[in-house]
Amino acid sequence: MPLDISPPHRPPKAERAAAAAAYRRVRDASLALARRFPIEDWMLQSMEEASPIKWNLAHTTWFFETFVLRARAPQEPVFDPAFGYLFNSYYEQIGDRHPRARRGLLSRPDAQTVVAYRAHVDERMIALLESADRDETAALAPILDLGLAHEEQHQELLITDIQHALSTNPTLPTALSGGERGLGAAPPIDWVGFDGGLVEIGWDGRGFAFDNEGPRHKAHLEPFALASRSVTNGEFAEFIDDGGYDDCRLWLADGWARRCDENWSAPLYWRREDDAAPWSAFSLFGVRAIDPAAPVAHVSFYEAAAFAEWAGARLPREAEWECASREADAHGAVLDGAALRAPQPALAAPGRVSQMFGDVWEWTASAYSPYPGFRAAAGPVGEYNGKFMSSQMVLRGGSCATPRNHVRATYRNFFPPEARWQFSGLRLARDA
Amino acid sequence: MPLDISPPHRPPKAERAAAAAAYRRVRDASLALARRFPIEDWMLQSMEEASPIKWNLAHTTWFFETFVLRARAPQEPVFDPAFGYLFNSYYEQIGDRHPRARRGLLSRPDAQTVVAYRAHVDERMIALLESADRDETAALAPILDLGLAHEEQHQELLITDIQHALSTNPTLPTALSGGERGLGAAPPIDWVGFDGGLVEIGWDGRGFAFDNEGPRHKAHLEPFALASRSVTNGEFAEFIDDGGYDDCRLWLADGWARRCDENWSAPLYWRREDDAAPWSAFSLFGVRAIDPAAPVAHVSFYEAAAFAEWAGARLPREAEWECASREADAHGAVLDGAALRAPQPALAAPGRVSQMFGDVWEWTASAYSPYPGFRAAAGPVGEYNGKFMSSQMVLRGGSCATPRNHVRATYRNFFPPEARWQFSGLRLARDA
Amino acid sequence: MPLDISPPHRPPKAERAAAAAAYRRVRDASLALARRFPIEDWMLQSMEEASPIKWNLAHTTWFFETFVLRARAPQEPVFDPAFGYLFNSYYEQIGDRHPRARRGLLSRPDAQTVVAYRAHVDERMIALLESADRDETAALAPILDLGLAHEEQHQELLITDIQHALSTNPTLPTALSGGERGLGAAPPIDWVGFDGGLVEIGWDGRGFAFDNEGPRHKAHLEPFALASRSVTNGEFAEFIDDGGYDDCRLWLADGWARRCDENWSAPLYWRREDDAAPWSAFSLFGVRAIDPAAPVAHVSFYEAAAFAEWAGARLPREAEWECASREADAHGAVLDGAALRAPQPALAAPGRVSQMFGDVWEWTASAYSPYPGFRAAAGPVGEYNGKFMSSQMVLRGGSCATPRNHVRATYRNFFPPEARWQFSGLRLARDA
Amino acid sequence: MPLDISPPHRPPKAERAAAAAAYRRVRDASLALARRFPIEDWMLQSMEEASPIKWNLAHTTWFFETFVLRARAPQEPVFDPAFGYLFNSYYEQIGDRHPRARRGLLSRPDAQTVVAYRAHVDERMIALLESADRDETAALAPILDLGLAHEEQHQELLITDIQHALSTNPTLPTALSGGERGLGAAPPIDWVGFDGGLVEIGWDGRGFAFDNEGPRHKAHLEPFALASRSVTNGEFAEFIDDGGYDDCRLWLADGWARRCDENWSAPLYWRREDDAAPWSAFSLFGVRAIDPAAPVAHVSFYEAAAFAEWAGARLPREAEWECASREADAHGAVLDGAALRAPQPALAAPGRVSQMFGDVWEWTASAYSPYPGFRAAAGPVGEYNGKFMSSQMVLRGGSCATPRNHVRATYRNFFPPEARWQFSGLRLARDA
Repeated sequence: MPLDISPPHRPPKAERAAAAAAYRRVRDASLALARRFPIEDWMLQSMEEASPIKWNLAHTTWFFETFVLRARAPQEPVFDPAFGYLFNSYYEQIGDRHPRARRGLLSRPDAQTVVAYRAHVDERMIALLESADRDETAALAPILDLGLAHEEQHQELLITDIQHALSTNPTLPTALSGGERGLGAAPPIDWVGFDGGLVEIGWDGRGFAFDNEGPRHKAHLEPFALASRSVTNGEFAEFIDDGGYDDCRLWLADGWARRCDENWSAPLYWRREDDAAPWSAFSLFGVRAIDPAAPVAHVSFYEAAAFAEWAGARLPREAEWECASREADAHGAVLDGAALRAPQPALAAPGRVSQMFGDVWEWTASAYSPYPGFRAAAGPVGEYNGKFMSSQMVLRGGSCATPRNHVRATYRNFFPPEARWQFSGLRLARDA
Repeated sequence: MPLDISPPHRPPKAERAAAAAAYRRVRDASLALARRFPIEDWMLQSMEEASPIKWNLAHTTWFFETFVLRARAPQEPVFDPAFGYLFNSYYEQIGDRHPRARRGLLSRPDAQTVVAYRAHVDERMIALLESADRDETAALAPILDLGLAHEEQHQELLITDIQHALSTNPTLPTALSGGERGLGAAPPIDWVGFDGGLVEIGWDGRGFAFDNEGPRHKAHLEPFALASRSVTNGEFAEFIDDGGYDDCRLWLADGWARRCDENWSAPLYWRREDDAAPWSAFSLFGVRAIDPAAPVAHVSFYEAAAFAEWAGARLPREAEWECASREADAHGAVLDGAALRAPQPALAAPGRVSQMFGDVWEWTASAYSPYPGFRAAAGPVGEYNGKFMSSQMVLRGGSCATPRNHVRATYRNFFPPEARWQFSGLRLARDA
Repeated sequence: MPLDISPPHRPPKAERAAAAAAYRRVRDASLALARRFPIEDWMLQSMEEASPIKWNLAHTTWFFETFVLRARAPQEPVFDPAFGYLFNSYYEQIGDRHPRARRGLLSRPDAQTVVAYRAHVDERMIALLESADRDETAALAPILDLGLAHEEQHQELLITDIQHALSTNPTLPTALSGGERGLGAAPPIDWVGFDGGLVEIGWDGRGFAFDNEGPRHKAHLEPFALASRSVTNGEFAEFIDDGGYDDCRLWLADGWARRCDENWSAPLYWRREDDAAPWSAFSLFGVRAIDPAAPVAHVSFYEAAAFAEWAGARLPREAEWECASREADAHGAVLDGAALRAPQPALAAPGRVSQMFGDVWEWTASAYSPYPGFRAAAGPVGEYNGKFMSSQMVLRGGSCATPRNHVRATYRNFFPPEARWQFSGLRLARDA
Repeated sequence: MPLDISPPHRPPKAERAAAAAAYRRVRDASLALARRFPIEDWMLQSMEEASPIKWNLAHTTWFFETFVLRARAPQEPVFDPAFGYLFNSYYEQIGDRHPRARRGLLSRPDAQTVVAYRAHVDERMIALLESADRDETAALAPILDLGLAHEEQHQELLITDIQHALSTNPTLPTALSGGERGLGAAPPIDWVGFDGGLVEIGWDGRGFAFDNEGPRHKAHLEPFALASRSVTNGEFAEFIDDGGYDDCRLWLADGWARRCDENWSAPLYWRREDDAAPWSAFSLFGVRAIDPAAPVAHVSFYEAAAFAEWAGARLPREAEWECASREADAHGAVLDGAALRAPQPALAAPGRVSQMFGDVWEWTASAYSPYPGFRAAAGPVGEYNGKFMSSQMVLRGGSCATPRNHVRATYRNFFPPEARWQFSGLRLARDA
């Protein structure tokens, strides 16, 4: 029976194989996800904030090529010297970039070439992971973890971006089969109380986290209560029926201006024949009646805040959310490989908070600011999170489009307050 | 030996076959042209004025389906009821349309479906043409001719639109092989005099013409002279070297404003490393050194007018152009099926005007206005030309991207004075 | 009794005095016009195309300072060296300019300083005119005439610009008293026929004309008929009632797009409480019921063309208009000093064209192009007219805001087809 | 000697007189400030965020008319019924408003009318204050205090708005005399340490405060240090010289985008002849050499944050700032009636924080969010602060344009991160 007798300077073969397998699993999931859409869809860019599938596939590959392969071996030729310009997203320190709004015009490289680019980089990455000695493995771990987390983020974006793009097609195509729903009604909201006081939040150093999740630090919280589950489509429809979109008193000034400019009258993707008709919504599973028991998604921070005001409540602060989530029940719908599900109704869990991880991201009342003591990393990867710390709001939890591995209590997602194309919903909070 | 004994009410079989063959030839050319580009290119729309290849292919098909098949048999089902909304270009009387600027977002229908749509309509068109009786054939002729002329226009647009789209790709891809050039220098310009006087211009009723080419009517012309050939790239480079783009005195006010807003310093697609380097230009044949002997293309009316001012000459009026063209030598490069050529240098033809048909369209000094007595046709096809008779300038001749059959002396092409993405050049004129 | 015995090299004193008086009369009229409005109004600029009263007053002064005083004596100090930048309108050859859209932000120089600027320049101009010898007088005449014609143009603009500016004030102020109207109905339209043939149009060399009115040249016209008077408000209201603004078939494509973008449903300044209410219109005389007998004003070329299409007629070509105007009756309402009147109903004049000079400018079917043989003057004044010869339409006649002296048969006014803030109306024409 | 024997239900005469005097003092200061500028300046609006002087004067008057006079006596006629539409700023619950961007087009009402409007309302307000009984006085106090604080805010805006407007005038006029500067250099920065821990911040209930300054609440702070004074012009010039505006690593992403879009290369109003020339700056006192010892003003949050990053420090959080300010030395330059001063250099105060109140507002690292427990007031005045709690950053302290009475430790000023036209500067902080 052969033994794995690794020399002292190499990690055990199994360990190396595991790293390679993890890499392969995440990378393969991206391509599997993309392949659920025809090549024509791969080209679509429906707004500046969203990217084509093809671009997503190439950009994540460029990330590994640039920050791992080239960083280690700058003299080795890259797959295509033009790709640095085409597929750099926002790393100013790396160099000039193709304008973000014009990614949809990149018919070349074609899909086949991008798939070949992935294979080329994957082959080299696997070889590296499988041959690295112990020191190298340790040195690689942070950027490898970051690259895979980055790839997972783009899996989520791939889903939300293509959903947006297809929603602009007047034929409202059904892109994916599936999307089964839960049965029955949502349990009533239960208010779960928390003591507050001086608490600790942020990454505790175990497992992977983005830099913006730390440093762990103290915060003072007054006693508060959180709703046991997210706000549902049914509840949001009540808000609409009660004139929530027409009552300026419920809205932040910027939100009201946006609502007026863009004629918001319901969450993104909702539609109905006329004011008396029932609501349906466009999704990758086609246009379907809304599920009143499932959490509302595709609302902006402004709509979330207006709903909370209407409900006589407020949005949770992120520290409140994080503390409460430690006592939360297990996950809702999250992304498993390339298998997308629709947001699911909460299960009854009296006296406990549930549905905090998965289904929908929850807008918090907290602006996206650096934690006390935060310093961005040196070098280009320092641009990953820190430079976006203005004019955005924090969302917590995770959605049906968030890869399972990507969900954790300390995760700080962030989007501008007007963003609606993510699976973004809300949970109510109130002072105790 | 079998005779073709058509009954009196049917055109001879050969005649019917010829109509079907003409239809098939034009339609096949469009698809052959499109197939020289990968599917990814079919999606591209780089500006509102330009359309994706796929949209071009579907729209021309919709034209036949709507104005021939549905007009004859309104009760018969269409290929897809959604296509009326998606592929109507600008026929207000037909109904609402997908916004022009968003044609590039139509990943669905995919390429395969559009090709099937073409086959579906072609099958019915051919069947109709082959079975029509004499009266039907006569009744069909005008709209059939219009539909084929329309399809040919879109073949030219397909070429100019994809050239523009690919020019926005930082990799400046070489899309087509070929594009051979003429040898040697252009002959010197010869000034060919014309007497003017009371002349007749416009369609004389023979062969096909668009409605805007008539009615034939009288116009008074003073004696004038036309240059024997188009202005060349070499001459235009002299204009640039002489500061033509920096001397406001040469420019119309709107042209100067446009030049400043968009930083024009050379024809569209021209580029050079630095001010001392030689000029090259992007084309579907790649980036190549300009051919100093070939006619300049991709200049706006404003640039054409500024050049003429610099040259101490002027642009010809369209009536002058049309009169002079009757004595012109034969064609230059035009589109033959799917075989695109580059604009070619003029041949020496002392004392005669040459190069008037093909190579490049020539901007005239004439605004696009209705001829005396012009009335647009009743019904939607009346929208074809008449409603565009404001704020555009007339171009005459034809370009390397114009199908051979589409070139004639009375043809009035028209574009806004700032348009540059057609193969548009100029020829000098002066008062005698 | 003293005799005016001028030396041979000087024009007679009376002649010099007449020149000075003419200058003074035009200049004084501008200021008198401005003084009918409070200082606060002098600041207003409601769109890029319009200028504040104060700017108009300063710019016309700058014109004389620059093209007369400085041209003669470049070494003499100007009133304020900053004014060249502030008050140059569009003379590229003179130098940089303050951006047109920001003229309303020039609180400094204040009104008092601008009035002093006028006095300063006027004093020098009068001194020059009164002391010039015969040669100087002859040399000065063209630029003096141009300067006064220019000043008169700005008197008209002053009126139309302030009317537009005040129309943006929600209180819709009544700026001027007066504006009396004619009594009774408009006479029915009579169609007056003209033979056409080979005609001559353009400036014949007598009296002042802008350069764009020449050279006089031949044109061929088919027989045509002109309506005996302008289209009235009452007729235009019928067009509206008949759905003219909602029937795309009547409109040029650019016009329809503009109508949709800007929600046109009536001429500029028209308003009514609801669809059943009678129309009223804002003017400098306040908001008043429209006079059905008076000519419609403040319509764009697009609206004029749509009306003509609806009426089964067309707009006249400018050569037709000019020929017909030679047989026209005398003037309508024009500007007399600072005394503005409202457009007046036509008087009955069976078998003759009337109302061609004054009341409203009439859109023609002719794009603004150079006449055969036209060459702009050398130097900056050559920018006066020639460089605007693209994308504009010719209007003929004159309006209630046009100074009496400024009205003549060969005058070619021009505006973009979407312009509505002038007193622009229309007269119908048709083929005989 | 007569005694003031007020009946029990009335406040003593002296108290009533004091209220009226306070009202009069604030109101008179606004007009005195405005009168330092000519009427032409009163019209200027140079950007949507800024308002004309005349509008400021009318709007603050409308505030008292609406929220005091009409609230008490709705049946009494207002000065002009149109003013509600014209001079409501952003109170959605009050009704429709004139678009903010078009305030500069309101030539009517003219200046004289606005001054009469002020007198009309002031007369009624004074009469009310002087005649109110004890209960009325108590009931009026909150809205009176708010109205005067509001008027003071507009005094500051009047200054910063007119400065911006005049800065767009190419002649860069000197609007005010004065603006004397301090002598000598700024003292070196001293780092003053604070313990942090669980602190209380927010309004403690004494004196006037805006609703957004409460409720008072606990916050946890880590030990920190604040710079003893604001960053100076001299220090900011070093940042520029060191390439601060060209090093993307120092900037937030939104800030970098803004810097690129708007070509920022120095604080607003700074200018120099060329890269080697010394800096000067435009102010109401004219264009003057920058004072290296005075605090830098007119920087955005983005520039402040970039400077802090460059300096190896950070911006203070607002809770840190507020705690530290309790130990601060007395005021710097603030607005005293209509007497504006320039920001002054700090005085040496070793071991203490100084210059916290006056001279310049200091950007904090804190987004403008509601304090725990905050609820906006019911009714329209609830729109005063609460609805702006998104996408803005908190500034603390006060500037040379802030009325003396308006400066306090708990004051939360807020502006979007890109705003530069306030006297906004910064102070450095760091973790202890």
